Amino acid sequence: MNWDDRETIYQQAKGWVLEAGKEIRDNISDPLTVTTKSNPNDLVTTMDSDTEYFFMTRIKETFPDHRIISEEGYGDEVSALDGTVWIIDPIDGTMNFVHQKRNFAISVGIYHDGIGEIGLIYDVMADVLYSAKKGEGAYRNEKGLLPLNKHKHFKEAILSLNHFWLCENRLVNETVMQNLVKTVRGTRTYGSAALEFAAVAEGIMDGYMTMELAPWDIAAGIIIVDEVGGNTMNAFGDSVNLLQKGSVLTCNPAIQENIVEDYIKKGRK
Amino acid sequence: MNWDDRETIYQQAKGWVLEAGKEIRDNISDPLTVTTKSNPNDLVTTMDSDTEYFFMTRIKETFPDHRIISEEGYGDEVSALDGTVWIIDPIDGTMNFVHQKRNFAISVGIYHDGIGEIGLIYDVMADVLYSAKKGEGAYRNEKGLLPLNKHKHFKEAILSLNHFWLCENRLVNETVMQNLVKTVRGTRTYGSAALEFAAVAEGIMDGYMTMELAPWDIAAGIIIVDEVGGNTMNAFGDSVNLLQKGSVLTCNPAIQENIVEDYIKKGRK
Repeated sequence: MNWDDRETIYQQAKGWVLEAGKEIRDNISDPLTVTTKSNPNDLVTTMDSDTEYFFMTRIKETFPDHRIISEEGYGDEVSALDGTVWIIDPIDGTMNFVHQKRNFAISVGIYHDGIGEIGLIYDVMADVLYSAKKGEGAYRNEKGLLPLNKHKHFKEAILSLNHFWLCENRLVNETVMQNLVKTVRGTRTYGSAALEFAAVAEGIMDGYMTMELAPWDIAAGIIIVDEVGGNTMNAFGDSVNLLQKGSVLTCNPAIQENIVEDYIKKGRK
Repeated sequence: MNWDDRETIYQQAKGWVLEAGKEIRDNISDPLTVTTKSNPNDLVTTMDSDTEYFFMTRIKETFPDHRIISEEGYGDEVSALDGTVWIIDPIDGTMNFVHQKRNFAISVGIYHDGIGEIGLIYDVMADVLYSAKKGEGAYRNEKGLLPLNKHKHFKEAILSLNHFWLCENRLVNETVMQNLVKTVRGTRTYGSAALEFAAVAEGIMDGYMTMELAPWDIAAGIIIVDEVGGNTMNAFGDSVNLLQKGSVLTCNPAIQENIVEDYIKKGRK
């Protein structure tokens, strides 16, 4: 992607993200219409679809040749990442949005011919924007994020993972995961993949793993984490595919082998 | 406790909490001296002990007949809760303080003849003070917190618990806890008991359970949760003892029986 084009797209995307976030904040106390999708805990609100519609219409007007992959169905049918593709989660962490009215994010990743060029994760209620352009570093608001600590010890790591990793599951033997939990320094669960990627990029969490995420949950996070030297893969250490759902691990490379080789692969079903 | 005395003590305690918090914020970027206590992940810093010393000296000067129970050793030997007792955690969530430089709190509970009179939980970096005086409601900064939803359904509850509940442990069969995790809407882990109590009081989390906490982790939280109609007990539904460590459950009463009777007691070892 040509740098002038990228800068134009970046500024436009950032402006829309901040505008959409302000709209959500201004209406955060309104009554919500909550419905469910794949299961009773997979929530969606009119705010999710309204926010997605906002992005979709702006993008189609301004960049008619760009395509969109998004959570709530206004996007395009995309079967290959050629050209410029916006991968959008209008509200990442909808359960937090509904129950907590905080701890959710707008996530926008922009790819060009399959390469992640621009990542934006906006913690709406905290008014904190994580951003990155490929090769130009990552930022928390205006402040540059430092490269991840290359000497992080596994026993001093803090990992984010949900509790289902420790229940019987189809991916990995839960007793192996119990040993992992007992070996690291601490574990957390925040309930927003985008904000968990952002925490890894900031170095306040050393890894985040999840059994199944969609492209819109991770598209921005991958780019931001990459800019501080972090790696993203599936739980078994292989490349993630941005056109389908799957397991995801994003982490400081210093502890990657510990997680993948010493635990997840050993417990693989 | 006489109401005039209580108001004086409340205003003084609140002032000290905000002052100590500002001192921590002003020095948050200083290099830390971190040591460990009971195990390699039980961290303590000079900021914990300096903050505790600040409270201890102020309280002893101003209220010489009050006694103090606190985490880092400057407090008194207290074997009964008669008179006025301050129960203090200078930094609750020390692991978050060290690794994240956020998501930690100052926790101060003030008891008179065993009755919780004043609770203060200060989310230092967010500059959010949760407070309560017995019988006068609970507040998040200046805003009164609403009574907890009496009609909360267990299947729509969000619970906070750490991942050790799902590993082999001495209290409860982990497979029973796995069923609990699969039954509720969602689970979270934040790493600060005080902030998790505050989340329950706000109704953004419906319950928080932990296998072992000390009095200073919960003394303020109990009072604040109580003011919105929440209950605090040990994991098996019995009273907590503020003079010793033990398991703790604080929750919306609407889901208390589900947690205690349908899960924890059934899995009791």
